[in-house]
Amino acid sequence: MPVYTCTTVKATLSAETRASLAGELTRIHSMINHVPGTYVNVVFHELAADDVYTDGQPAQPLLINGWVRTGHPEAQSSQLVAEIAAAATRVTGIPAKRVLVVIQNSPAHFAIEGGRVLPAPGEEEAWLQQGQEGGGNAH
Amino acid sequence: MPVYTCTTVKATLSAETRASLAGELTRIHSMINHVPGTYVNVVFHELAADDVYTDGQPAQPLLINGWVRTGHPEAQSSQLVAEIAAAATRVTGIPAKRVLVVIQNSPAHFAIEGGRVLPAPGEEEAWLQQGQEGGGNAH
Amino acid sequence: MPVYTCTTVKATLSAETRASLAGELTRIHSMINHVPGTYVNVVFHELAADDVYTDGQPAQPLLINGWVRTGHPEAQSSQLVAEIAAAATRVTGIPAKRVLVVIQNSPAHFAIEGGRVLPAPGEEEAWLQQGQEGGGNAH
Repeated sequence: MPVYTCTTVKATLSAETRASLAGELTRIHSMINHVPGTYVNVVFHELAADDVYTDGQPAQPLLINGWVRTGHPEAQSSQLVAEIAAAATRVTGIPAKRVLVVIQNSPAHFAIEGGRVLPAPGEEEAWLQQGQEGGGNAH
Repeated sequence: MPVYTCTTVKATLSAETRASLAGELTRIHSMINHVPGTYVNVVFHELAADDVYTDGQPAQPLLINGWVRTGHPEAQSSQLVAEIAAAATRVTGIPAKRVLVVIQNSPAHFAIEGGRVLPAPGEEEAWLQQGQEGGGNAH
Repeated sequence: MPVYTCTTVKATLSAETRASLAGELTRIHSMINHVPGTYVNVVFHELAADDVYTDGQPAQPLLINGWVRTGHPEAQSSQLVAEIAAAATRVTGIPAKRVLVVIQNSPAHFAIEGGRVLPAPGEEEAWLQQGQEGGGNAH
């Protein structure tokens, strides 16, 4: 359901580090927001050195933008953003001062995956069950 | 007014398919949200194979992120997301289980196009009329 | 705290123009939203000619998407989007009719920078002060 978009200057993260970070973001999101990992997408934008600026100067931040469904309990969202930010530095070695994590949200019914409108937070289990009974993604 | 951002691994969609999908997203959005096609933007991000992950593994999803103005009637938004998702599979042949459509929104007055603040949903006609009377985009 | 993402067809903006636009967006955001320039990020996506469509046809718009914290006074947000749009045309020479600026928002506590949850609008000064007293980004 979610998409995490990680933006850096090219060659900031090795292919191995990108795979590790994708794995960690997936593990954390899955655990905290009760979503199977098969529904967690992570993409990387690797930009030219003169395409990324902080304070109006060329810079090398790690920018992580996530999208989640509106309505998760506030404590859950706070835990999510904290663990994502901690994982970013732990996995990549990029110091926290160069890492920005932003979570955006919109209503679950504004999103469709596998041909089905996403469930509101808290209704994941019934939704997943229904998908299996109905023969999966075609329904 | 809207922007649709389609993200895939490189070479997933041919240039012809990208043009067809852009045309369909424009047609659908224009019809459902009452916006002339000239205000519908569609962009494609084609990423390296090791820049896209689902479930922590390299994958080939089609991720479509749309932005719309806050305040469209709920039934209209539901129809929009359903038709966008259906078109994605119809045009590209990518099965629904690999397609994720997410619509995000913010207030119309947080956006400017052609030099003018966007109208709230339902006020498009007056806004378009006013633009023509005023000499168009310069106003 | 904010991220501005500018999307164009490749070679629309020279490296010099991108740097100037990044500088202007940083100056404007910093001034209006009371955020030090060191917290303003600007990135550019330069896409292939057949990856960008308006009205279903290949096109050369300048699309600027910004993220800000929810809760700024409405007049402040209106001023922000107006000045960003004016700067886009002033710096790049791209006519207003091809420029779309969209500001999106989510709660400040959905974002972490420098290892710390962002302050709500209006609480920047105390947050910045606290960061210095606490030894900076590690806290």
